[in-house]
Amino acid sequence: MNDQTLHGLLETVWQHLARGIADRHHPARHPTLATLGPEGPELRTLVLRRIDRAACLLELHTDAASPKAAQITADPRAALHVWLPKARLQIRARTMARLAPGDPAIFATLPPEAQTNYGGLAPGTPLSGDTGPGTGDPARFTRILCHLTDIDALLLTDPHRRARYRADSDWQGQWIAP
Amino acid sequence: MNDQTLHGLLETVWQHLARGIADRHHPARHPTLATLGPEGPELRTLVLRRIDRAACLLELHTDAASPKAAQITADPRAALHVWLPKARLQIRARTMARLAPGDPAIFATLPPEAQTNYGGLAPGTPLSGDTGPGTGDPARFTRILCHLTDIDALLLTDPHRRARYRADSDWQGQWIAP
Repeated sequence: MNDQTLHGLLETVWQHLARGIADRHHPARHPTLATLGPEGPELRTLVLRRIDRAACLLELHTDAASPKAAQITADPRAALHVWLPKARLQIRARTMARLAPGDPAIFATLPPEAQTNYGGLAPGTPLSGDTGPGTGDPARFTRILCHLTDIDALLLTDPHRRARYRADSDWQGQWIAP
Repeated sequence: MNDQTLHGLLETVWQHLARGIADRHHPARHPTLATLGPEGPELRTLVLRRIDRAACLLELHTDAASPKAAQITADPRAALHVWLPKARLQIRARTMARLAPGDPAIFATLPPEAQTNYGGLAPGTPLSGDTGPGTGDPARFTRILCHLTDIDALLLTDPHRRARYRADSDWQGQWIAP
């Protein structure tokens, strides 16, 4: 997986992202999403739900009532990060994130306990006493669509190798100092 | 490690961070640091080098010529993130980050290939041809000091549990909706 050409390294990145979809134990399954919050950057682990290589799109799901949804609405500049310990590969990506309604048909297939992630008190609300989980609300089931504008791949092999790829240069890539 | 009291959960967080120092294979060894860049949030994996529980301090190392050093100088608002798959625990922390010179005595103990991480072309510089690694420069060996102001701990057990702790309320903690 450590192809040392620019093209090959980008292929490796997308192969890992595809494995994150297929294998729930692969680290690309759980990227970290950064958004811009009122007090600075905000990070959280999310589940990678879908990728579309042709559209350079990663899809994540969230609760419409979550702070990250409000942050994306206020400022769509966001970033994604995956660290792959075995491959010694760090994948960083920039995106202008966009919210879209979740698919009710997918919501209907979620187990009840997963549906409750999209309902009840807004994430981050202080709790008083045992409020218990809320009821899932399909109207709060929301997609985060991340059209990538920039991918940075850092291989911590010996020597370190790093490349940057930009949508606006047709993903051709450029080696950069690690 | 899944103590369900507010106090216990904060203890668990610090125990994991301490394991990140002691065990190079523990996921807390490699937190993700987010800073504010010119195009939005920037994320990267770093190595957790030192913790000081009493001072609520995490220490990381960087090259003074790296974009993240410039970003921290321009705007110290930063955030840290660790996802611990086995514990199903996500640790998020806010900090006002600060740069400080690295310890020359520690630099001197680094293997030569690690020293080169603090020298040569600035990280992110486009490469033309095979420039090879630079020579390590102890003047570029820099500490990132992260005095935490806020810790958010999310346990993805059943049911999910989440607590927020703030320095300005003496880290007493508050359960919040996950």
